[in-house]
Amino acid sequence: MKIGFIGLGVMGLPMAGHLIDAGHELFLHRVKPKSQELVEKGGKALESPRAVAEAADVVILMVPDTPDVEAVLFGPDGVAEGLGAGKMVIDMSSISPVATKDFAARIEALDCSYVDAPVSGGEVGARNAALTIMVGAREDAFARAKPLFEIMGKTITHVGPVGDGQTAKVANQIIVGLTIEAVAEGLVFAQKAGADPARVREALLGGFAGSTIMKIHGERMIERTFDPGFRIKLHRKDMALAVDSARQLGLALPNAAAVEQLMNAAIARGDGDRDHSALYLTLEALAGNS
Amino acid sequence: MKIGFIGLGVMGLPMAGHLIDAGHELFLHRVKPKSQELVEKGGKALESPRAVAEAADVVILMVPDTPDVEAVLFGPDGVAEGLGAGKMVIDMSSISPVATKDFAARIEALDCSYVDAPVSGGEVGARNAALTIMVGAREDAFARAKPLFEIMGKTITHVGPVGDGQTAKVANQIIVGLTIEAVAEGLVFAQKAGADPARVREALLGGFAGSTIMKIHGERMIERTFDPGFRIKLHRKDMALAVDSARQLGLALPNAAAVEQLMNAAIARGDGDRDHSALYLTLEALAGNS
Repeated sequence: MKIGFIGLGVMGLPMAGHLIDAGHELFLHRVKPKSQELVEKGGKALESPRAVAEAADVVILMVPDTPDVEAVLFGPDGVAEGLGAGKMVIDMSSISPVATKDFAARIEALDCSYVDAPVSGGEVGARNAALTIMVGAREDAFARAKPLFEIMGKTITHVGPVGDGQTAKVANQIIVGLTIEAVAEGLVFAQKAGADPARVREALLGGFAGSTIMKIHGERMIERTFDPGFRIKLHRKDMALAVDSARQLGLALPNAAAVEQLMNAAIARGDGDRDHSALYLTLEALAGNS
Repeated sequence: MKIGFIGLGVMGLPMAGHLIDAGHELFLHRVKPKSQELVEKGGKALESPRAVAEAADVVILMVPDTPDVEAVLFGPDGVAEGLGAGKMVIDMSSISPVATKDFAARIEALDCSYVDAPVSGGEVGARNAALTIMVGAREDAFARAKPLFEIMGKTITHVGPVGDGQTAKVANQIIVGLTIEAVAEGLVFAQKAGADPARVREALLGGFAGSTIMKIHGERMIERTFDPGFRIKLHRKDMALAVDSARQLGLALPNAAAVEQLMNAAIARGDGDRDHSALYLTLEALAGNS
Protein backbone atom coordinates (compact mmCIF):
# COMPACT_ATOMS: atom_id res chain seq x y z
CA MET A 1 0.00 0.00 0.00
CA LYS A 2 1.13 3.59 -0.60
CA ILE A 3 1.41 5.07 2.88
CA GLY A 4 2.31 8.60 3.87
CA PHE A 5 3.95 8.98 7.28
CA ILE A 6 4.39 12.40 8.87
CA GLY A 7 6.13 12.69 12.24
CA LEU A 8 9.33 10.68 12.47
CA GLY A 9 10.22 11.20 16.12
CA VAL A 10 11.05 8.55 18.75
CA MET A 11 7.66 6.91 18.15
CA GLY A 12 7.06 7.55 14.45
CA LEU A 13 10.51 6.46 13.27
CA PRO A 14 10.27 2.80 14.37
CA MET A 15 6.55 2.65 13.46
CA ALA A 16 7.27 3.79 9.89
CA GLY A 17 10.19 1.35 9.79
CA HIS A 18 7.88 -1.60 10.58
CA LEU A 19 5.57 -0.56 7.72
CA ILE A 20 8.48 -0.48 5.23
CA ASP A 21 9.76 -3.83 6.54
CA ALA A 22 6.28 -5.27 5.93
CA GLY A 23 6.57 -4.33 2.26
CA HIS A 24 4.65 -1.06 2.11
CA GLU A 25 5.74 1.91 -0.02
CA LEU A 26 6.31 4.89 2.27
CA PHE A 27 6.17 8.63 1.51
CA LEU A 28 7.76 10.75 4.20
CA HIS A 29 7.92 14.41 5.10
CA ARG A 30 10.66 16.24 6.98
CA VAL A 31 13.23 13.43 6.96
CA LYS A 32 16.10 14.38 9.27
CA PRO A 33 19.54 12.75 9.68
CA LYS A 34 18.04 10.54 12.42
CA SER A 35 15.34 9.21 10.09
CA GLN A 36 17.63 8.86 7.04
CA GLU A 37 17.58 5.08 7.57
CA LEU A 38 13.99 5.03 6.29
CA VAL A 39 15.12 6.51 2.96
CA GLU A 40 17.91 3.94 2.76
CA LYS A 41 15.26 1.22 3.20
CA GLY A 42 13.25 2.67 0.27
CA GLY A 43 11.09 5.40 1.84
CA LYS A 44 10.65 8.50 -0.37
CA ALA A 45 11.25 11.92 1.19
CA LEU A 46 8.85 14.59 -0.08
CA GLU A 47 8.84 18.37 0.42
CA SER A 48 5.39 18.92 2.00
CA PRO A 49 2.42 17.19 3.68
CA ARG A 50 0.50 18.08 0.52
CA ALA A 51 2.96 16.13 -1.65
CA VAL A 52 2.70 13.17 0.76
CA ALA A 53 -1.12 13.20 0.51
CA GLU A 54 -0.93 13.37 -3.29
CA ALA A 55 1.39 10.35 -3.47
CA ALA A 56 -0.20 8.11 -0.82
CA ASP A 57 -3.56 6.39 -0.30
CA VAL A 58 -3.34 6.46 3.46
CA VAL A 59 -1.64 9.26 5.44
CA ILE A 60 -0.52 8.47 8.99
CA LEU A 61 0.27 11.28 11.44
CA MET A 62 2.41 10.87 14.56
CA VAL A 63 3.13 14.41 15.80
CA PRO A 64 3.36 15.94 19.28
CA ASP A 65 0.12 17.83 19.91
CA THR A 66 -3.24 19.15 18.67
CA PRO A 67 -1.85 22.29 16.95
CA ASP A 68 0.73 20.15 15.12
CA VAL A 69 -2.00 17.91 13.71
CA GLU A 70 -3.99 20.98 12.67
CA ALA A 71 -0.98 22.55 10.95
CA VAL A 72 -0.03 19.36 9.09
CA LEU A 73 -3.61 18.75 7.94
CA PHE A 74 -4.89 22.25 7.23
CA GLY A 75 -1.87 24.55 7.10
CA PRO A 76 -0.42 25.87 3.82
CA ASP A 77 0.73 22.93 1.66
CA GLY A 78 -1.06 20.72 4.17
CA VAL A 79 -2.44 17.21 3.77
CA ALA A 80 -5.97 18.48 2.99
CA GLU A 81 -4.72 20.20 -0.16
CA GLY A 82 -3.27 16.94 -1.49
CA LEU A 83 -6.10 14.53 -0.66
CA GLY A 84 -8.43 13.04 -3.24
CA ALA A 85 -11.70 11.15 -2.78
CA GLY A 86 -11.33 7.73 -1.12
CA LYS A 87 -8.07 8.45 0.67
CA MET A 88 -7.69 7.98 4.40
CA VAL A 89 -6.08 9.97 7.23
CA ILE A 90 -5.01 8.06 10.36
CA ASP A 91 -3.96 10.26 13.26
CA MET A 92 -1.92 8.23 15.74
CA SER A 93 -0.84 11.30 17.74
CA SER A 94 -2.36 11.83 21.21
CA ILE A 95 -4.50 14.96 20.88
CA SER A 96 -7.80 16.52 21.89
CA PRO A 97 -10.88 14.33 21.32
CA VAL A 98 -12.93 17.50 20.79
CA ALA A 99 -10.59 18.87 18.10
CA THR A 100 -10.40 15.39 16.55
CA LYS A 101 -14.13 15.40 15.77
CA ASP A 102 -13.72 18.78 14.05
CA PHE A 103 -10.68 17.63 12.03
CA ALA A 104 -12.54 14.43 11.03
CA ALA A 105 -15.56 16.39 9.78
CA ARG A 106 -13.31 18.59 7.61
CA ILE A 107 -11.45 15.59 6.16
CA GLU A 108 -14.70 13.65 5.55
CA ALA A 109 -16.04 16.69 3.66
CA LEU A 110 -13.31 15.92 1.10
CA ASP A 111 -14.78 12.42 0.59
CA CYS A 112 -11.95 10.92 2.61
CA SER A 113 -12.12 8.88 5.80
CA TYR A 114 -10.59 9.77 9.15
CA VAL A 115 -9.38 7.44 11.88
CA ASP A 116 -8.00 8.44 15.29
CA ALA A 117 -5.69 5.82 16.72
CA PRO A 118 -3.54 7.03 19.62
CA VAL A 119 -1.20 4.53 21.20
CA SER A 120 0.25 3.57 24.54
CA GLY A 121 3.32 1.50 25.22
CA GLY A 122 5.94 4.18 24.59
CA GLU A 123 9.23 4.00 22.75
CA VAL A 124 9.80 0.36 23.70
CA GLY A 125 6.35 -0.62 22.43
CA ALA A 126 6.96 1.27 19.18
CA ARG A 127 10.32 -0.42 18.62
CA ASN A 128 8.96 -3.90 19.36
CA ALA A 129 5.74 -3.38 17.36
CA ALA A 130 3.91 -4.06 20.62
CA LEU A 131 1.86 -0.87 20.95
CA THR A 132 -1.63 -0.75 22.40
CA ILE A 133 -3.75 1.09 19.83
CA MET A 134 -7.11 2.67 20.75
CA VAL A 135 -9.14 3.31 17.62
CA GLY A 136 -12.01 5.66 16.84
CA ALA A 137 -13.44 5.02 13.36
CA ARG A 138 -16.41 3.88 11.31
CA GLU A 139 -16.54 0.09 10.91
CA ASP A 140 -15.36 0.14 7.27
CA ALA A 141 -12.50 2.54 7.97
CA PHE A 142 -11.41 0.42 10.95
CA ALA A 143 -11.40 -2.72 8.77
CA ARG A 144 -9.23 -0.94 6.19
CA ALA A 145 -6.75 0.42 8.77
CA LYS A 146 -6.51 -2.70 10.95
CA PRO A 147 -3.87 -4.57 8.91
CA LEU A 148 -1.58 -1.54 9.29
CA PHE A 149 -2.20 -1.40 13.05
CA GLU A 150 -1.31 -5.08 13.31
CA ILE A 151 2.12 -4.29 11.85
CA MET A 152 2.78 -1.64 14.53
CA GLY A 153 0.91 -2.89 17.58
CA LYS A 154 -0.24 -5.88 19.58
CA THR A 155 -3.50 -4.92 21.32
CA ILE A 156 -5.85 -3.13 18.94
CA THR A 157 -9.27 -2.05 20.25
CA HIS A 158 -11.97 -0.43 18.16
CA VAL A 159 -13.45 1.70 20.93
CA GLY A 160 -16.19 3.38 18.86
CA PRO A 161 -16.76 6.11 16.26
CA VAL A 162 -14.29 8.88 15.39
CA GLY A 163 -12.93 10.61 18.50
CA ASP A 164 -13.36 7.61 20.78
CA GLY A 165 -9.75 6.53 20.35
CA GLN A 166 -8.55 9.90 21.66
CA THR A 167 -11.19 9.80 24.41
CA ALA A 168 -9.95 6.38 25.57
CA LYS A 169 -6.35 7.64 25.52
CA VAL A 170 -7.20 10.70 27.63
CA ALA A 171 -9.17 8.50 30.06
CA ASN A 172 -6.12 6.22 30.25
CA GLN A 173 -3.76 9.09 31.02
CA ILE A 174 -6.14 10.46 33.67
CA ILE A 175 -6.38 7.08 35.41
CA VAL A 176 -2.65 6.34 35.14
CA GLY A 177 -1.61 9.80 36.37
CA LEU A 178 -4.05 9.78 39.28
CA THR A 179 -3.16 6.23 40.28
CA ILE A 180 0.56 7.10 40.33
CA GLU A 181 -0.28 10.07 42.53
CA ALA A 182 -2.45 7.84 44.77
CA VAL A 183 0.37 5.32 45.28
CA ALA A 184 2.80 8.19 45.94
CA GLU A 185 0.50 9.70 48.60
CA GLY A 186 0.11 6.29 50.27
CA LEU A 187 3.83 5.51 50.30
CA VAL A 188 4.96 8.99 51.36
CA PHE A 189 2.38 8.84 54.16
CA ALA A 190 3.77 5.45 55.26
CA GLN A 191 7.33 6.76 55.18
CA LYS A 192 6.51 9.93 57.12
CA ALA A 193 4.57 7.89 59.71
CA GLY A 194 7.79 5.95 60.32
CA ALA A 195 6.91 2.70 58.53
CA ASP A 196 8.98 1.01 55.83
CA PRO A 197 7.22 1.87 52.54
CA ALA A 198 8.55 -1.34 50.97
CA ARG A 199 6.85 -3.46 53.65
CA VAL A 200 3.65 -1.44 53.36
CA ARG A 201 3.62 -1.89 49.57
CA GLU A 202 4.08 -5.66 50.00
CA ALA A 203 1.25 -5.83 52.53
CA LEU A 204 -1.13 -3.99 50.18
CA LEU A 205 -0.16 -5.40 46.78
CA GLY A 206 -2.52 -8.38 46.93
CA GLY A 207 -5.59 -6.43 48.11
CA PHE A 208 -7.84 -3.72 46.71
CA ALA A 209 -4.89 -1.30 46.51
CA GLY A 210 -3.20 -3.62 44.02
CA SER A 211 -2.59 -2.31 40.51
CA THR A 212 -0.10 -2.42 37.68
CA ILE A 213 1.01 1.04 38.86
CA MET A 214 1.50 -0.19 42.46
CA LYS A 215 3.56 -3.07 41.11
CA ILE A 216 5.77 -1.24 38.60
CA HIS A 217 5.77 2.44 39.59
CA GLY A 218 5.47 1.64 43.31
CA GLU A 219 8.67 -0.37 43.03
CA ARG A 220 10.38 2.52 41.19
CA MET A 221 9.38 4.86 44.05
CA ILE A 222 10.86 2.52 46.65
CA GLU A 223 14.03 1.77 44.65
CA ARG A 224 14.22 5.47 43.64
CA THR A 225 14.91 4.54 40.00
CA PHE A 226 13.30 7.24 37.90
CA ASP A 227 14.91 6.86 34.47
CA PRO A 228 12.22 7.16 31.81
CA GLY A 229 9.94 5.30 31.16
CA PHE A 230 7.41 7.94 30.39
CA ARG A 231 8.62 11.46 31.06
CA ILE A 232 6.64 13.66 33.45
CA LYS A 233 6.70 16.51 30.92
CA LEU A 234 4.92 14.28 28.39
CA HIS A 235 2.36 13.14 30.90
CA ARG A 236 1.81 16.77 31.90
CA LYS A 237 0.83 17.46 28.29
CA ASP A 238 -1.80 14.72 28.57
CA MET A 239 -3.13 16.03 31.88
CA ALA A 240 -3.43 19.48 30.29
CA LEU A 241 -5.38 17.84 27.46
CA ALA A 242 -7.73 16.26 30.03
CA VAL A 243 -8.23 19.54 31.86
CA ASP A 244 -8.76 21.52 28.63
CA SER A 245 -11.20 18.90 27.33
CA ALA A 246 -13.11 18.98 30.63
CA ARG A 247 -13.52 22.74 30.20
CA GLN A 248 -14.77 22.31 26.62
CA LEU A 249 -17.06 19.36 27.37
CA GLY A 250 -18.41 20.76 30.63
CA LEU A 251 -17.35 18.46 33.42
CA ALA A 252 -15.17 18.64 36.52
CA LEU A 253 -11.98 16.59 36.94
CA PRO A 254 -10.82 17.80 40.35
CA ASN A 255 -7.95 15.38 40.84
CA ALA A 256 -6.76 15.51 37.23
CA ALA A 257 -6.47 19.27 37.73
CA ALA A 258 -4.53 18.77 40.96
CA VAL A 259 -2.21 16.23 39.34
CA GLU A 260 -1.50 18.63 36.47
CA GLN A 261 -0.41 21.17 39.10
CA LEU A 262 1.77 18.60 40.88
CA MET A 263 3.36 17.73 37.52
CA ASN A 264 4.00 21.45 36.97
CA ALA A 265 5.74 21.43 40.36
CA ALA A 266 7.73 18.30 39.44
CA ILE A 267 8.92 20.00 36.24
CA ALA A 268 9.75 23.18 38.17
CA ARG A 269 11.84 21.05 40.53
CA GLY A 270 13.82 19.71 37.55
CA ASP A 271 12.13 16.29 37.29
CA GLY A 272 10.43 16.84 33.90
CA ASP A 273 12.67 14.35 32.11
CA ARG A 274 12.28 11.67 34.77
CA ASP A 275 9.70 8.88 34.69
CA HIS A 276 6.20 9.89 35.86
CA SER A 277 6.70 7.77 38.99
CA ALA A 278 9.07 10.57 40.10
CA LEU A 279 5.92 12.46 41.12
CA TYR A 280 6.79 10.69 44.37
CA LEU A 281 9.66 13.15 44.83
CA THR A 282 7.27 16.10 44.63
CA LEU A 283 5.03 14.57 47.32
CA GLU A 284 8.13 13.85 49.41
CA ALA A 285 9.08 17.51 49.05
CA LEU A 286 5.58 18.44 50.26
CA ALA A 287 6.40 16.34 53.33
CA GLY A 288 9.55 18.35 53.93
CA ASN A 289 11.90 15.58 52.76
CA SER A 290 13.80 16.97 49.80
CA MET B 1 -6.45 -19.07 75.80
CA LYS B 2 -8.48 -16.57 77.87
CA ILE B 3 -9.38 -13.86 75.40
CA GLY B 4 -11.30 -10.63 76.01
CA PHE B 5 -13.21 -9.26 73.02
CA ILE B 6 -14.67 -5.76 73.08
CA GLY B 7 -16.62 -4.49 70.05
CA LEU B 8 -19.19 -6.99 68.77
CA GLY B 9 -20.43 -5.16 65.68
CA VAL B 10 -20.67 -6.49 62.09
CA MET B 11 -16.94 -7.23 62.11
CA GLY B 12 -16.30 -8.14 65.77
CA LEU B 13 -19.23 -10.55 66.12
CA PRO B 14 -18.08 -13.12 63.52
CA MET B 15 -14.40 -12.64 64.50
CA ALA B 16 -15.17 -13.45 68.16
CA GLY B 17 -17.29 -16.38 66.98
CA HIS B 18 -14.31 -17.90 65.13
CA LEU B 19 -12.20 -17.65 68.30
CA ILE B 20 -14.83 -19.48 70.37
CA ASP B 21 -15.23 -22.10 67.64
CA ALA B 22 -11.46 -22.65 67.76
CA GLY B 23 -11.77 -23.55 71.46
CA HIS B 24 -10.77 -20.31 73.17
CA GLU B 25 -12.47 -19.02 76.33
CA LEU B 26 -14.01 -15.62 75.55
CA PHE B 27 -14.84 -12.72 77.88
CA LEU B 28 -17.13 -10.15 76.32
CA HIS B 29 -18.33 -6.65 77.10
CA ARG B 30 -21.60 -5.01 76.05
CA VAL B 31 -23.31 -8.13 74.67
CA LYS B 32 -26.48 -7.09 72.84
CA PRO B 33 -29.36 -9.25 71.54
CA LYS B 34 -27.51 -9.51 68.21
CA SER B 35 -24.39 -10.93 69.88
CA GLN B 36 -26.28 -13.20 72.33
CA GLU B 37 -25.26 -16.18 70.18
CA LEU B 38 -21.71 -15.81 71.51
CA VAL B 39 -22.95 -16.34 75.08
CA GLU B 40 -24.92 -19.38 73.93
CA LYS B 41 -21.65 -20.77 72.54
CA GLY B 42 -19.94 -20.28 75.90
CA GLY B 43 -18.71 -16.66 75.86
CA LYS B 44 -18.97 -14.86 79.21
CA ALA B 45 -20.61 -11.42 79.29
CA LEU B 46 -18.94 -9.03 81.75
CA GLU B 47 -19.99 -5.58 82.96
CA SER B 48 -16.92 -3.49 82.04
CA PRO B 49 -13.73 -3.41 79.96
CA ARG B 50 -11.92 -3.51 83.30
CA ALA B 51 -13.59 -6.82 84.23
CA VAL B 52 -12.71 -8.21 80.78
CA ALA B 53 -9.05 -7.24 81.24
CA GLU B 54 -9.00 -8.82 84.70
CA ALA B 55 -10.40 -12.12 83.39
CA ALA B 56 -8.44 -12.44 80.13
CA ASP B 57 -4.78 -12.77 79.13
CA VAL B 58 -5.27 -11.10 75.77
CA VAL B 59 -7.79 -8.31 75.16
CA ILE B 60 -8.89 -7.71 71.55
CA LEU B 61 -10.58 -4.45 70.53
CA MET B 62 -12.73 -3.99 67.43
CA VAL B 63 -14.48 -0.64 67.84
CA PRO B 64 -15.35 2.16 65.37
CA ASP B 65 -12.81 4.95 65.85
CA THR B 66 -9.85 6.45 67.77
CA PRO B 67 -11.93 7.99 70.61
CA ASP B 68 -13.69 4.63 71.14
CA VAL B 69 -10.36 2.85 71.58
CA GLU B 70 -9.21 5.57 73.99
CA ALA B 71 -12.43 5.32 76.03
CA VAL B 72 -12.33 1.51 76.24
CA LEU B 73 -8.65 1.47 77.22
CA PHE B 74 -8.31 4.50 79.48
CA GLY B 75 -11.84 5.58 80.44
CA PRO B 76 -13.39 4.85 83.86
CA ASP B 77 -13.52 1.08 84.41
CA GLY B 78 -11.38 0.80 81.30
CA VAL B 79 -9.07 -2.00 80.19
CA ALA B 80 -5.98 -0.28 81.66
CA GLU B 81 -7.43 -0.57 85.17
CA GLY B 82 -7.84 -4.33 84.84
CA LEU B 83 -4.53 -5.26 83.20
CA GLY B 84 -1.71 -7.04 84.98
CA ALA B 85 1.92 -7.55 83.94
CA GLY B 86 2.40 -9.84 80.95
CA LYS B 87 -1.07 -9.35 79.45
CA MET B 88 -1.57 -8.18 75.86
CA VAL B 89 -3.84 -5.69 74.13
CA ILE B 90 -4.56 -6.24 70.42
CA ASP B 91 -6.36 -3.36 68.72
CA MET B 92 -7.93 -4.55 65.48
CA SER B 93 -9.95 -1.33 64.96
CA SER B 94 -8.87 1.07 62.20
CA ILE B 95 -7.65 4.17 64.01
CA SER B 96 -4.98 6.87 64.01
CA PRO B 97 -1.39 5.58 63.77
CA VAL B 98 -0.26 8.63 65.75
CA ALA B 99 -2.68 7.96 68.63
CA THR B 100 -1.79 4.25 68.45
CA LYS B 101 1.83 4.95 69.39
CA ASP B 102 0.63 6.96 72.40
CA PHE B 103 -1.82 4.25 73.51
CA ALA B 104 0.88 1.60 73.11
CA ALA B 105 3.34 3.53 75.27
CA ARG B 106 0.76 3.86 78.06
CA ILE B 107 -0.13 0.14 77.91
CA GLU B 108 3.54 -0.90 77.78
CA ALA B 109 4.16 1.23 80.91
CA LEU B 110 1.92 -1.32 82.68
CA ASP B 111 4.32 -4.14 81.68
CA CYS B 112 1.87 -5.30 79.05
CA SER B 113 2.35 -5.59 75.30
CA TYR B 114 0.40 -3.77 72.60
CA VAL B 115 -0.31 -4.89 69.05
CA ASP B 116 -2.14 -2.91 66.37
CA ALA B 117 -3.73 -5.16 63.79
CA PRO B 118 -6.32 -3.42 61.59
CA VAL B 119 -7.97 -5.51 58.91
CA SER B 120 -9.33 -5.22 55.41
CA GLY B 121 -11.76 -7.53 53.68
CA GLY B 122 -14.97 -6.23 55.26
CA GLU B 123 -17.95 -8.11 56.61
CA VAL B 124 -17.56 -10.96 54.12
CA GLY B 125 -13.89 -11.40 55.03
CA ALA B 126 -14.79 -11.40 58.74
CA ARG B 127 -17.52 -14.01 58.28
CA ASN B 128 -15.31 -16.27 56.16
CA ALA B 129 -12.24 -15.84 58.39
CA ALA B 130 -10.50 -14.48 55.31
CA LEU B 131 -9.43 -11.05 56.54
CA THR B 132 -6.20 -9.34 55.52
CA ILE B 133 -4.50 -8.33 58.78
CA MET B 134 -1.78 -5.66 58.88
CA VAL B 135 0.21 -5.93 62.08
CA GLY B 136 2.37 -3.48 64.00
CA ALA B 137 4.15 -5.18 66.91
CA ARG B 138 7.45 -6.25 68.43
CA GLU B 139 8.65 -9.63 67.13
CA ASP B 140 7.75 -11.52 70.33
CA ALA B 141 4.30 -9.95 70.59
CA PHE B 142 3.62 -10.74 66.92
CA ALA B 143 4.62 -14.37 67.48
CA ARG B 144 2.23 -14.60 70.44
CA ALA B 145 -0.70 -12.99 68.58
CA LYS B 146 -0.21 -14.75 65.23
CA PRO B 147 -2.11 -17.98 66.06
CA LEU B 148 -5.16 -15.84 66.91
CA PHE B 149 -4.87 -13.88 63.65
CA GLU B 150 -4.72 -17.16 61.74
CA ILE B 151 -8.13 -18.08 63.15
CA MET B 152 -9.69 -14.80 61.89
CA GLY B 153 -7.73 -13.99 58.73
CA LYS B 154 -5.94 -15.36 55.71
CA THR B 155 -3.21 -12.86 54.77
CA ILE B 156 -1.28 -11.76 57.84
CA THR B 157 1.62 -9.32 57.36
CA HIS B 158 3.90 -8.11 60.13
CA VAL B 159 4.54 -4.65 58.69
CA GLY B 160 6.85 -3.41 61.45
CA PRO B 161 6.84 -2.07 65.02
CA VAL B 162 3.77 -0.77 66.88
CA GLY B 163 1.76 1.71 64.78
CA ASP B 164 2.87 0.28 61.44
CA GLY B 165 -0.28 -1.82 61.10
CA GLN B 166 -2.45 1.30 61.37
CA THR B 167 -0.09 3.16 59.03
CA ALA B 168 -0.42 0.42 56.40
CA LYS B 169 -4.20 0.48 56.77
CA VAL B 170 -4.38 4.25 56.30
CA ALA B 171 -2.05 3.99 53.27
CA ASN B 172 -4.36 1.29 51.89
CA GLN B 173 -7.46 3.43 52.34
CA ILE B 174 -5.73 6.44 50.73
CA ILE B 175 -4.70 4.39 47.69
CA VAL B 176 -8.04 2.60 47.35
CA GLY B 177 -10.07 5.81 47.73
CA LEU B 178 -7.93 7.76 45.28
CA THR B 179 -7.87 4.92 42.75
CA ILE B 180 -11.68 4.67 42.85
CA GLU B 181 -11.84 8.43 42.25
CA ALA B 182 -9.29 8.10 39.41
CA VAL B 183 -11.32 5.41 37.65
CA ALA B 184 -14.49 7.47 38.16
CA GLU B 185 -12.87 10.58 36.61
CA GLY B 186 -11.67 8.53 33.63
CA LEU B 187 -15.02 6.83 33.01
CA VAL B 188 -17.14 9.97 33.53
CA PHE B 189 -14.80 11.78 31.13
CA ALA B 190 -15.28 9.01 28.55
CA GLN B 191 -19.05 9.10 28.97
CA LYS B 192 -19.25 12.89 28.69
CA ALA B 193 -17.01 12.86 25.59
CA GLY B 194 -19.59 10.57 23.98
CA ALA B 195 -17.74 7.25 24.19
CA ASP B 196 -19.08 4.04 25.73
CA PRO B 197 -17.41 3.79 29.17
CA ALA B 198 -17.70 -0.02 29.07
CA ARG B 199 -15.65 -0.16 25.84
CA VAL B 200 -13.14 2.32 27.22
CA ARG B 201 -12.73 0.25 30.40
CA GLU B 202 -12.17 -2.89 28.33
CA ALA B 203 -9.58 -1.13 26.17
CA LEU B 204 -7.65 0.06 29.25
CA LEU B 205 -7.97 -2.92 31.61
CA GLY B 206 -4.88 -4.74 30.31
CA GLY B 207 -2.58 -1.71 30.31
CA PHE B 208 -1.05 0.60 32.93
CA ALA B 209 -4.54 1.76 33.98
CA GLY B 210 -5.34 -1.81 35.06
CA SER B 211 -6.05 -2.40 38.75
CA THR B 212 -8.24 -4.45 41.05
CA ILE B 213 -10.33 -1.28 41.45
CA MET B 214 -10.70 -0.86 37.66
CA LYS B 215 -11.79 -4.48 37.46
CA ILE B 216 -14.25 -4.66 40.36
CA HIS B 217 -15.32 -1.07 41.10
CA GLY B 218 -15.06 -0.01 37.45
CA GLU B 219 -17.56 -2.74 36.60
CA ARG B 220 -19.87 -1.56 39.39
CA MET B 221 -19.75 1.98 37.94
CA ILE B 222 -20.69 0.72 34.49
CA GLU B 223 -23.39 -1.67 35.73
CA ARG B 224 -24.54 0.98 38.25
CA THR B 225 -24.68 -1.62 41.06
CA PHE B 226 -23.75 0.21 44.24
CA ASP B 227 -24.98 -2.09 47.03
CA PRO B 228 -22.32 -2.30 49.72
CA GLY B 229 -19.59 -3.56 49.65
CA PHE B 230 -17.82 -0.92 51.65
CA ARG B 231 -19.98 2.06 52.54
CA ILE B 232 -18.86 5.55 51.51
CA LYS B 233 -19.53 6.85 55.03
CA LEU B 234 -17.05 4.30 56.43
CA HIS B 235 -14.43 5.15 53.83
CA ARG B 236 -14.97 8.85 54.57
CA LYS B 237 -13.98 8.11 58.19
CA ASP B 238 -10.72 6.62 56.89
CA MET B 239 -10.03 9.58 54.59
CA ALA B 240 -10.61 11.89 57.56
CA LEU B 241 -8.08 9.78 59.49
CA ALA B 242 -5.58 10.21 56.65
CA VAL B 243 -6.12 13.97 56.49
CA ASP B 244 -5.94 14.37 60.30
CA SER B 245 -2.78 12.23 60.46
CA ALA B 246 -1.21 14.30 57.66
CA ARG B 247 -1.81 17.42 59.74
CA GLN B 248 -0.25 15.82 62.83
CA LEU B 249 2.71 14.26 61.00
CA GLY B 250 3.42 17.29 58.81
CA LEU B 251 2.84 16.24 55.21
CA ALA B 252 0.49 17.18 52.39
CA LEU B 253 -2.03 14.73 50.90
CA PRO B 254 -3.71 16.96 48.31
CA ASN B 255 -5.83 14.30 46.62
CA ALA B 256 -6.78 12.49 49.83
CA ALA B 257 -8.11 15.85 51.03
CA ALA B 258 -10.06 16.31 47.78
CA VAL B 259 -11.47 12.78 47.96
CA GLU B 260 -12.62 13.37 51.54
CA GLN B 261 -14.54 16.40 50.24
CA LEU B 262 -16.04 14.39 47.37
CA MET B 263 -17.11 11.73 49.89
CA ASN B 264 -18.71 14.49 51.98
CA ALA B 265 -20.60 15.48 48.83
CA ALA B 266 -21.58 11.86 48.14
CA ILE B 267 -22.98 11.55 51.67
CA ALA B 268 -24.79 14.89 51.30
CA ARG B 269 -26.34 13.54 48.10
CA GLY B 270 -27.68 10.52 50.02
CA ASP B 271 -25.09 7.96 48.88
CA GLY B 272 -23.39 7.41 52.26
CA ASP B 273 -24.72 3.85 52.61
CA ARG B 274 -23.80 2.86 49.07
CA ASP B 275 -20.55 1.16 48.08
CA HIS B 276 -17.56 3.50 47.71
CA SER B 277 -17.65 2.94 43.94
CA ALA B 278 -20.77 5.18 44.02
CA LEU B 279 -18.34 8.10 44.16
CA TYR B 280 -18.89 7.80 40.40
CA LEU B 281 -22.36 9.31 40.89
CA THR B 282 -20.87 12.40 42.53
CA LEU B 283 -18.49 12.90 39.60
CA GLU B 284 -21.38 12.37 37.20
CA ALA B 285 -23.29 15.07 39.08
CA LEU B 286 -20.26 17.36 38.65
CA ALA B 287 -20.67 16.71 34.91
CA GLY B 288 -24.30 17.82 35.04
CA ASN B 289 -25.66 14.27 34.70
CA SER B 290 -27.65 13.58 37.85
